[in-house]
Amino acid sequence: MTADKALFVKMVLDKWNATIKQTDDLLKNLSDEQLFREVAPTKNRGIYLLGHLTAAHDLMFRLLDLGNALFPDYKAIFLDKPDKVISGLPTVHELKQSWTDVNMQLGNHFKVIPSDEWFLRHTAISPDDFEKEPHRNKLNVVLTRSHHLSNHLGQLILLKN
Amino acid sequence: MTADKALFVKMVLDKWNATIKQTDDLLKNLSDEQLFREVAPTKNRGIYLLGHLTAAHDLMFRLLDLGNALFPDYKAIFLDKPDKVISGLPTVHELKQSWTDVNMQLGNHFKVIPSDEWFLRHTAISPDDFEKEPHRNKLNVVLTRSHHLSNHLGQLILLKN
Repeated sequence: MTADKALFVKMVLDKWNATIKQTDDLLKNLSDEQLFREVAPTKNRGIYLLGHLTAAHDLMFRLLDLGNALFPDYKAIFLDKPDKVISGLPTVHELKQSWTDVNMQLGNHFKVIPSDEWFLRHTAISPDDFEKEPHRNKLNVVLTRSHHLSNHLGQLILLKN
Repeated sequence: MTADKALFVKMVLDKWNATIKQTDDLLKNLSDEQLFREVAPTKNRGIYLLGHLTAAHDLMFRLLDLGNALFPDYKAIFLDKPDKVISGLPTVHELKQSWTDVNMQLGNHFKVIPSDEWFLRHTAISPDDFEKEPHRNKLNVVLTRSHHLSNHLGQLILLKN
């Protein structure tokens, strides 16, 4: 039983780690000027997507019962509001650092969470609902967020020349 | 053991199905004219990405040992070559139909594959390698392709007004 779970956890975490690495590699190759551009005319700017992804991942600490968000102010800017509404965003340098910090700390937790624990409920589902829907577990949060990251990574790649 | 596996399979297939549905809904709302546009200046056109995704999913029949590709000609056009190199692509109407056919037939197979079978090797890995890397199973093909779809879906969404 635990061997099956460990295998499945590996499948999901491998894909999460690979997608984070792809994003990190892309960010290293995008200048500040490129990140200030819209990914397509009239659409979100790179800097907004970077903040949006950082804010979404930062919420995972609470969802997975790992502690509090590192940058709680980001939610209001990058999740509750669309791009170009709020002036005075954090700098690209700050956002890149926050992105790295959030994923590094999540990654440190992920390495030591026992396989069984990944299949427990996350904090946004009630015990009653979880009994009926056991697929809504902690690992599913990672699976879902890693698709979300892939989606926006496909957009950020468009900023490359 | 099988209950755990059934849960894993559900997690991955749910996300696959949801991402296919999101793409289908988007495609219903994109005109032929919109699909002929580049997702961002100088980048791939919508029609190419639709063919690319269809070709990638069509290869899954062989990978998962479910039969042959339905549209074997697509590989040369949409996987082996970049956009704007080959003239005389299939029409948008044909591509939308092929996209639907491929995913529908894959979906029909997915519904009846027993949980245990998802954790067997896919056809592109040798028995020896699979023994060392059991995470490279059939379910992992779906997990990986569903991230690939999310990535390009993020780009296709940019074609909306």
